[in-house]
Amino acid sequence: MPDTWREIAARKQKQRAEGIPKPWLLPSSYPLGAGSDNVLNVPRECGLLTADEIRITEAYDATALVSELAAGRLKSVDVVTAFCKRAAIAHQLTNCLTEFFFEDGIARAKQLDEYLSKTGKPKGPLHGLPISLKDTFKVKGYDASVGVASLSFNPATTNSALVEVLLEQGAVLYCKTNIPQTMMALDSHNNVFGRTSNPANKHLTPGGSSGGEGALVAMRGSPLGIGTDVGGSIRIPAMCNGLVGVKPSHGRVPYAGQEGGSLPGSSKLAIESTAGPIARSVRDCEMLLRAVGNGSAWLFDPDVLPQTWEQQTALHTYLPSTRAKQPLLVGIMRTDGHSTPLPPIQRLMNEVAQKLRSPALPSWDAIEVVDIDISSLGPQCLKTFNGIMSIDGANTWLDHLDKTGEPLSPWLQSRLRRRPQKSLDEVRKLQAQKTDMQTRFLDVWKESGGYWSTPDSQAKKGSRTLDVIVCPVAPHPIPPIDRWNTTNYTSAFNLLDYPSGVLPVRTFGEADLEGELGQSPPLNGWDKINRELWTDVDRKVYLGSPLSVQVVAPKLMDTKLVEAMAVLEKALSSVQTAARKASKL
Amino acid sequence: MPDTWREIAARKQKQRAEGIPKPWLLPSSYPLGAGSDNVLNVPRECGLLTADEIRITEAYDATALVSELAAGRLKSVDVVTAFCKRAAIAHQLTNCLTEFFFEDGIARAKQLDEYLSKTGKPKGPLHGLPISLKDTFKVKGYDASVGVASLSFNPATTNSALVEVLLEQGAVLYCKTNIPQTMMALDSHNNVFGRTSNPANKHLTPGGSSGGEGALVAMRGSPLGIGTDVGGSIRIPAMCNGLVGVKPSHGRVPYAGQEGGSLPGSSKLAIESTAGPIARSVRDCEMLLRAVGNGSAWLFDPDVLPQTWEQQTALHTYLPSTRAKQPLLVGIMRTDGHSTPLPPIQRLMNEVAQKLRSPALPSWDAIEVVDIDISSLGPQCLKTFNGIMSIDGANTWLDHLDKTGEPLSPWLQSRLRRRPQKSLDEVRKLQAQKTDMQTRFLDVWKESGGYWSTPDSQAKKGSRTLDVIVCPVAPHPIPPIDRWNTTNYTSAFNLLDYPSGVLPVRTFGEADLEGELGQSPPLNGWDKINRELWTDVDRKVYLGSPLSVQVVAPKLMDTKLVEAMAVLEKALSSVQTAARKASKL
Repeated sequence: MPDTWREIAARKQKQRAEGIPKPWLLPSSYPLGAGSDNVLNVPRECGLLTADEIRITEAYDATALVSELAAGRLKSVDVVTAFCKRAAIAHQLTNCLTEFFFEDGIARAKQLDEYLSKTGKPKGPLHGLPISLKDTFKVKGYDASVGVASLSFNPATTNSALVEVLLEQGAVLYCKTNIPQTMMALDSHNNVFGRTSNPANKHLTPGGSSGGEGALVAMRGSPLGIGTDVGGSIRIPAMCNGLVGVKPSHGRVPYAGQEGGSLPGSSKLAIESTAGPIARSVRDCEMLLRAVGNGSAWLFDPDVLPQTWEQQTALHTYLPSTRAKQPLLVGIMRTDGHSTPLPPIQRLMNEVAQKLRSPALPSWDAIEVVDIDISSLGPQCLKTFNGIMSIDGANTWLDHLDKTGEPLSPWLQSRLRRRPQKSLDEVRKLQAQKTDMQTRFLDVWKESGGYWSTPDSQAKKGSRTLDVIVCPVAPHPIPPIDRWNTTNYTSAFNLLDYPSGVLPVRTFGEADLEGELGQSPPLNGWDKINRELWTDVDRKVYLGSPLSVQVVAPKLMDTKLVEAMAVLEKALSSVQTAARKASKL
Repeated sequence: MPDTWREIAARKQKQRAEGIPKPWLLPSSYPLGAGSDNVLNVPRECGLLTADEIRITEAYDATALVSELAAGRLKSVDVVTAFCKRAAIAHQLTNCLTEFFFEDGIARAKQLDEYLSKTGKPKGPLHGLPISLKDTFKVKGYDASVGVASLSFNPATTNSALVEVLLEQGAVLYCKTNIPQTMMALDSHNNVFGRTSNPANKHLTPGGSSGGEGALVAMRGSPLGIGTDVGGSIRIPAMCNGLVGVKPSHGRVPYAGQEGGSLPGSSKLAIESTAGPIARSVRDCEMLLRAVGNGSAWLFDPDVLPQTWEQQTALHTYLPSTRAKQPLLVGIMRTDGHSTPLPPIQRLMNEVAQKLRSPALPSWDAIEVVDIDISSLGPQCLKTFNGIMSIDGANTWLDHLDKTGEPLSPWLQSRLRRRPQKSLDEVRKLQAQKTDMQTRFLDVWKESGGYWSTPDSQAKKGSRTLDVIVCPVAPHPIPPIDRWNTTNYTSAFNLLDYPSGVLPVRTFGEADLEGELGQSPPLNGWDKINRELWTDVDRKVYLGSPLSVQVVAPKLMDTKLVEAMAVLEKALSSVQTAARKASKL
């Protein structure tokens, strides 16, 4: 008779707890889940890290680390050791790790140091950099249990394609991070590893499904993490932890060889999940995407396009080298037409639009803003997305759980149940709807397409196309635990396969507590639940939490997205409050 | 009560016959289907074409025509008129057209001439060039019946995405070409338009499903045609008519908005068909692919990658500009392991390998040849392809036919019947198999992958990758009508989504009549039927017919494919016999 889930989880947690080197254990004055609402500063203050380790983990971003490592001014063994130690501390405070292999990481770091000193050359563009991975990635010799008892104690015999590429590019792998059961929840709780908490505010969700990555990077336990995203699972934890996250288009970053919990081939009938970076700055995300893009990943994963980062369509008109005056054309999308953003999100979008339009902005002449209204398309996007994501009727996941009698996570209990698998005809129709939405959305980018609300209505005949869209990540601030509502603001761009990223703008302030909902009735059940995040909550819980926007580019224009995000990151920096700045270097 | 298929076909054929201007009708000494086995020279000899029209249609390839048109040395109206007239003649001899709109084409040509004379600039890279289209493409105002009665007399209200792009790039559309019923046969017969014949030898098949294109281009009734290919439907008619044809990867040439006879969304669960050129030279195919690739086609079709032709990975090491000595690395694949090529195809492959290895070749130092053996993968490719192509159980097609009581075409009668639609689980498994084949095939390109039979077995540890694979188009010469056998040599590369093209090498000569099958039993039923094309046929029927090879590049390396094809076209030109040369300029 197989072990029950409780036995497996207990063994797994014991193994994990014992894996932390004793000298890295926090004193009992820092118990997990208790203590302060905000544990971000504990690693610096707890006394476990040396001054050098604090400097290594706080004074550099990933790009700067790689630069120091390649020049030999930092040793990989020191960098990796510092991040292993800080990751162990972060884990004790937020429960963000699933598997860790600190010894392997440190051993590899030593090899890389030797390689550099012998050859005088870095191993690759990620030489010596520690990178954390979502638990879904397979690393030979370690579980990819994705927090499910029946998938535990089954070490991977192959590396995921991205793992191969990262290693070839010189990265050091040292830990994997927590996820929610089924990866279809927006918090990060499962029965094997428990719940990850938000290090900045334990009352709010850390997001999911790459929630462990979000918490770990926010804690500076990793300079750069890799998440995956099929409906928002990179962008949502990026938002919840005040980080930058990029969900690439399918075909840019290898996804093959992960444990997704689903049956082989099923993603081909649905929507492809994509892997991407979660980091502290756009330049760090770009560095990762460039290294992977230039890593011949198409030799490892047949879905990856054989194009280097530089071979992609760039934001030519905005590159310093061209000095062209053509502005970055930004479309501001304020609502999806399905869930109306709450007052603080509306305010944020107004501020962002105003800021980008403002002549006070140093680079003002290079950004142009138009309002776009896609509310006639948004609801259909959600309907199609939800249909496609429920093809399997949850049967495969529930089969995994039933093997050991494992129950559903709390948030999923009211949301997931066995339903009949969809028929082939239904799936075909959903695919046709997806293509239809992708086709209709082509017009959103075009001045003549009918979605731009330019002051001069004559301009609708123009031939310009948007460079990027800026919109909310969600219609609400970072919600309390287990209260994430709709994913349509993120999942629409999975349906459309548009690369999209999250940029923190500022923190939620006292003024954001104001603003009431109008008298009009909710648009639908989702909109009603969204309103409860304003009416049925102590709004003060949001104070100090990051407010972020999403940036979206046309399909496969990942280079363009990241370049535009860098422009917007700079342009919006003066919107940032002191609180946001404090969370940076 | 709806019209029967016979009534509809009769009306359709009457409409078509009456559409040919009276002065363009052949004298009765040239009846369709009778007369000589080879009608290629009839247009030149029949007296209907002026000397200028003969010169325009024979003395230029498409690339030269565009060059003359852009410079104003040829008028589009003259070029288009000449090709309309020659297409009408070709049609009377081979039954290759379905719809034609000669007046529209000539009117547009006049507009383009005016545009050029007014602005001094060509409209685009295809300025004034007549281009023919397979019947599946939709052109506003005309049927896209695909030869099915129930789909007839239903004029398109939109243009296919590629039609929009071609028009924007300056092309002139003037006719559409015949296809087989269901597009799943390899001849070109349907009940509405009848059968297209091979203009070089009426006893042999013109191929399919883009068979009308093959016949029309071979007759010089079109300088360049567009076909589509989901299992070989561009490459097979290219082979059967001694032409060059290129099947791009999915995502390079817009395919959206065609009439494929299947239900919306079904291609997403199966294999994506792709559109591509059929022409007389590699440079003509390249011109078309470059014009489309640089035509912002991603603004019209969400499946098209936003990359110009130049942004693709090129054959850098072989471009004259780099003068690099690194050789073009060609893998010769002699068999798919499922149907053993007949003696003349084996001989051809030996010749090609020998020629490419020969120091007598002027550019010898720049080509290197290795033998590869994929016979362990070939049979699984076919099994997966056949499974995926029968998901629908032929029900949608048979529904189209049943509406008017239309029977199946002869070749399909023993091959197509209603079967239960596959289940979602079966489809998912087929998709998983497809991904598995794509993953396993990644190793074929790699020196270390285990598929190269290099003389020095130590070399297997190397890190080189093949540039292209050269293999048969089919395991047999151009077969008699309705005797095409397996498509695995072409369809494997649809399953894998590899761009691939066909190059004519030489014609079948007296020496090719020799060679017998070995004593070993057939590998399987398909192999047995293939042998009958050698043992159960008067082999003399093959004399004078073109023998071609297929060139294959890795997924999405379309630029590289076409560049390599140009190198091979030149390298193999000395293999060509006088007969082949006579069919050129």
